Amino acid sequence: MPRRAIRLAVIPGDGIGQEVVAQGLKVLSAVLPQDVKLETREYDLGARRWHATGETLPEAELESLKDHDAILLGAIGDPSVPSGVLERGLLLKLRFAFDHYVNLRPSKLFPNTPTPLAGRPEIDFVVVREGTEGPYTGNGGSLRTGTPAEVATEVSVNTAYGVERVVRDAYERANARPRKKLTLVHKNNVLVYAGHLWKNIFDRVGQEYPDVTTDYLHVDAATIFFVTQPERFDVIVTDNLFGDIVTDLAAAVTGGIGLAASGNINPTGAFPSMFEPVHGSAPDIAGTGKADPTATVLSVALLLRHLGYEAEAARVETAVTEDLAARDGVTRTTDGIGDALADQVRSLPG
Amino acid sequence: MPRRAIRLAVIPGDGIGQEVVAQGLKVLSAVLPQDVKLETREYDLGARRWHATGETLPEAELESLKDHDAILLGAIGDPSVPSGVLERGLLLKLRFAFDHYVNLRPSKLFPNTPTPLAGRPEIDFVVVREGTEGPYTGNGGSLRTGTPAEVATEVSVNTAYGVERVVRDAYERANARPRKKLTLVHKNNVLVYAGHLWKNIFDRVGQEYPDVTTDYLHVDAATIFFVTQPERFDVIVTDNLFGDIVTDLAAAVTGGIGLAASGNINPTGAFPSMFEPVHGSAPDIAGTGKADPTATVLSVALLLRHLGYEAEAARVETAVTEDLAARDGVTRTTDGIGDALADQVRSLPG
Ligand SMILES: CC(C)[C@H](C(=O)O)[C@@H](O)C(=O)O
Ligand SMILES: CC(C)[C@H](C(=O)O)[C@@H](O)C(=O)O
Repeated sequence: MPRRAIRLAVIPGDGIGQEVVAQGLKVLSAVLPQDVKLETREYDLGARRWHATGETLPEAELESLKDHDAILLGAIGDPSVPSGVLERGLLLKLRFAFDHYVNLRPSKLFPNTPTPLAGRPEIDFVVVREGTEGPYTGNGGSLRTGTPAEVATEVSVNTAYGVERVVRDAYERANARPRKKLTLVHKNNVLVYAGHLWKNIFDRVGQEYPDVTTDYLHVDAATIFFVTQPERFDVIVTDNLFGDIVTDLAAAVTGGIGLAASGNINPTGAFPSMFEPVHGSAPDIAGTGKADPTATVLSVALLLRHLGYEAEAARVETAVTEDLAARDGVTRTTDGIGDALADQVRSLPG
Repeated sequence: MPRRAIRLAVIPGDGIGQEVVAQGLKVLSAVLPQDVKLETREYDLGARRWHATGETLPEAELESLKDHDAILLGAIGDPSVPSGVLERGLLLKLRFAFDHYVNLRPSKLFPNTPTPLAGRPEIDFVVVREGTEGPYTGNGGSLRTGTPAEVATEVSVNTAYGVERVVRDAYERANARPRKKLTLVHKNNVLVYAGHLWKNIFDRVGQEYPDVTTDYLHVDAATIFFVTQPERFDVIVTDNLFGDIVTDLAAAVTGGIGLAASGNINPTGAFPSMFEPVHGSAPDIAGTGKADPTATVLSVALLLRHLGYEAEAARVETAVTEDLAARDGVTRTTDGIGDALADQVRSLPG
């Protein structure tokens, strides 16, 4: 009889979200020990819901989501919904309401995976993107909207409280990795107020981690190294917007957005953390079985690790590595890849 | 006897600035018709000046700079000066004081030039980066600085006035190119106020350019295409910060920052426009003769074009193309490359 349980909230969302989440759940079920009961509850949130009811994330649903150990999210967004409505009203609302201040995005170039970079550099780093501040707070407004005299502002809000906790998390992660290197990415020669806050805290907290080598890069220069010298990165810590930008670039150089996983983590455990592929809803291929569910499956590995199932997380990652290594160019469906990965985790020694 | 004159202000600046600017002037002198008199005046601005006098850009010098047809700038910045002091006090001050609202950054993959991208895609696009607004205005501040209760803000300011003029400039440029394609890069699903202002103006002005094909990309997704499909870009228009980021990335994929030229342009002619390589002052190689002056020489081509010397601009660009095509891996000095380019423009049919 099951002695443990994972209460998982599932938000398939839009486009390919439904399909990839199904594969994530398939692999999750396959890898969990028999004594762990998986209780899932699906939430109908996203474009369909908004069209039907005008709601993005009702208060009751937000409350009910809290009552879970974690959230698995597919993808949010559809061209039929005005830009920003679902992003701000659903995805970012969740990240902010559940104080997901560590947006964790590992980047690894797996064997046998195509990269646009010549020479296949070794890539294995993780970006710790701040998730609750910066230009993402929704501060700003517009005056005389739609007239030739319009002024529109966006305010990046940064606090010592918010920066220190994410910087500390990044140092912990760097300290636990073999290379022990942490790079701060910002733009402190132009965004001097936010930049100095970040840099000062980065330097001060660093004194507590004498074994961690540190580095600072302006975000523009950082993008250069992502393509010319990605092997220089180990752990990167950066703000919400810069993190958004560089993690898409990181995904591009490590075989594409079809493999990039992420966790929106509240390390205190006060609220459930949320795991999602970095890719979007890709409405152009929704329903065609062409979506690669690997990013979602790797997000499930992050979910497992977050909940303390380290051995199971590692098994999912090994399954993905072996599956990618064995790919021979023959096209498989979303479902086919999910099945293969589920079989793979079952066949690996527990 | 010279009938025409170019009054050129020269700001060598810091690090390799001096060396690369010398080569830019060498090529400029070599390419100009005999009847054009080149009058240069050098300004001692940058780290040395700041250390000596505490000044970044005194009012009198700003006034005197106005009295020129154009400015050639090498590079600004030195590790001995606190981050932001010279950037905000000198470089950005010039861009803002002279209302350089078009920050023009062409990206081209020249023959025989190494690129980190596998498969050598065709790359030939130009980024029109807004130069006087966005998060670069210096709006923002910090409260309880240095304490655990610090709050630091950065305000991105965007006006219909400022966005429309740069968007219009970008449409003009797109319309004049064979492919006639313009891509707006922003992040309007998160930065909804600024994003909607940009998108609305982009769409409205586009109605006046029925021959121009338009496209919109979020900045994060755009970085993916820079490495996986750079050939899709023709003209890109974007805000000050996004433009900063993507043009370094563009430089990286087109053979590196040693080749990336830029013009800070005031299309009205009310103030002198300023031309500078995209690279920084590279203090680590300053004085070693290792700096590649090609980016400065290509900036001189932009300067010539801006002043109406189209044939001369084209000759400089041809010289660079031929010089790059002939490079055989043998290392040349900064001076050596400058000499070769000067010889080359002299030998090309006028
Ligand atoms: C969809 C969008 C709001 C989101 C973001 O900007 O954070 C996405 O790009 C991401 O990286 O998760
Ligand atoms: C030095 C810095 C202020 C500048 C900028 O951010 O604009 C530089 O990166 C550039 O791109 O010209």
